[in-house]
Amino acid sequence: MPHIDLPAGLPGISAGFAFRPETAKPMRELAHVLLHEPNSLNPGERELIATYVSSLNDCYFCQTSHGAAAACHLGNSSTVKQVKADFQHADISDKLKALLVIAGKVQSDGKHVTKQDVDAAKELGATDMEIHDTVLIAAAFCMYNRYVDGLATWQPRQEGMYEEMGKHLASEGYRKSSMTAA
Amino acid sequence: MPHIDLPAGLPGISAGFAFRPETAKPMRELAHVLLHEPNSLNPGERELIATYVSSLNDCYFCQTSHGAAAACHLGNSSTVKQVKADFQHADISDKLKALLVIAGKVQSDGKHVTKQDVDAAKELGATDMEIHDTVLIAAAFCMYNRYVDGLATWQPRQEGMYEEMGKHLASEGYRKSSMTAA
Repeated sequence: MPHIDLPAGLPGISAGFAFRPETAKPMRELAHVLLHEPNSLNPGERELIATYVSSLNDCYFCQTSHGAAAACHLGNSSTVKQVKADFQHADISDKLKALLVIAGKVQSDGKHVTKQDVDAAKELGATDMEIHDTVLIAAAFCMYNRYVDGLATWQPRQEGMYEEMGKHLASEGYRKSSMTAA
Repeated sequence: MPHIDLPAGLPGISAGFAFRPETAKPMRELAHVLLHEPNSLNPGERELIATYVSSLNDCYFCQTSHGAAAACHLGNSSTVKQVKADFQHADISDKLKALLVIAGKVQSDGKHVTKQDVDAAKELGATDMEIHDTVLIAAAFCMYNRYVDGLATWQPRQEGMYEEMGKHLASEGYRKSSMTAA
């Protein structure tokens, strides 16, 4: 039961977006630039960072919807499960593992990120832009997760719904107001 | 020393904004809508929420710049100090105290906000929109704070600089790229 009178029938963040379109617009735009627009980290990798941070924050809606988007981009869901359970042994690049270390530290406190963490990522080929975007994806999902949970939004447990959502997000991104996840 | 090659001489979040204008734009827009545009909570109250959350996250740049903006709106800096030290005994309304309880819980985890917390705020006159915006201000500052600290931005310890910044933010808001704080 949401804490405030949110529009009925809209899952997760989409209810907050419908309640307050003025804040929805920049929140959608930020997600679109960070996760969907062309970049040297592919969208699947960026969705994995979002999913990992959302799982650390224990946000069911965000980790499931972005996990589904990641699975759609990557062509499998096993990598998503591996990253959430133990990313150091997941079937991903060493560079992405180093970026996930940084993302995990940002999730707890940005000040936990060390020069050693950043140097390790750079030695594995991470660019300044990739490190910047990793920090900001992790920081942004500390916002989206708290928004979704802090309003006590409706987060249905229907796996099929999230699969459909993931497909839509993977193809269309986050700018359009027709869709339901940040 | 910032973790990546940020533009020199720009304090705090302004360096990240200059490095990545595509993400700066929606981040500025979100802050402008939440903190500056007319609303039933006045800008000073909203800046106090931002300052309180930034102090819980121990982000020097954000708590000092938004604290200065709050002081400018309120016409004094003692309320800002009281709110950071012990808001339950600060010279603010009971409604704002109830909203700060919610903001503090969002800062740790959105799921910590209870129906009782929300009912208490409503009984003191808080509207659904005010509760929504309180949750989102708290969530958004969990992003801004982590972004500022996760990049290890330059955060000078010059009180006068923050006073000037606070005056500018209080009068102009966050949309303009001429200014330096989220």
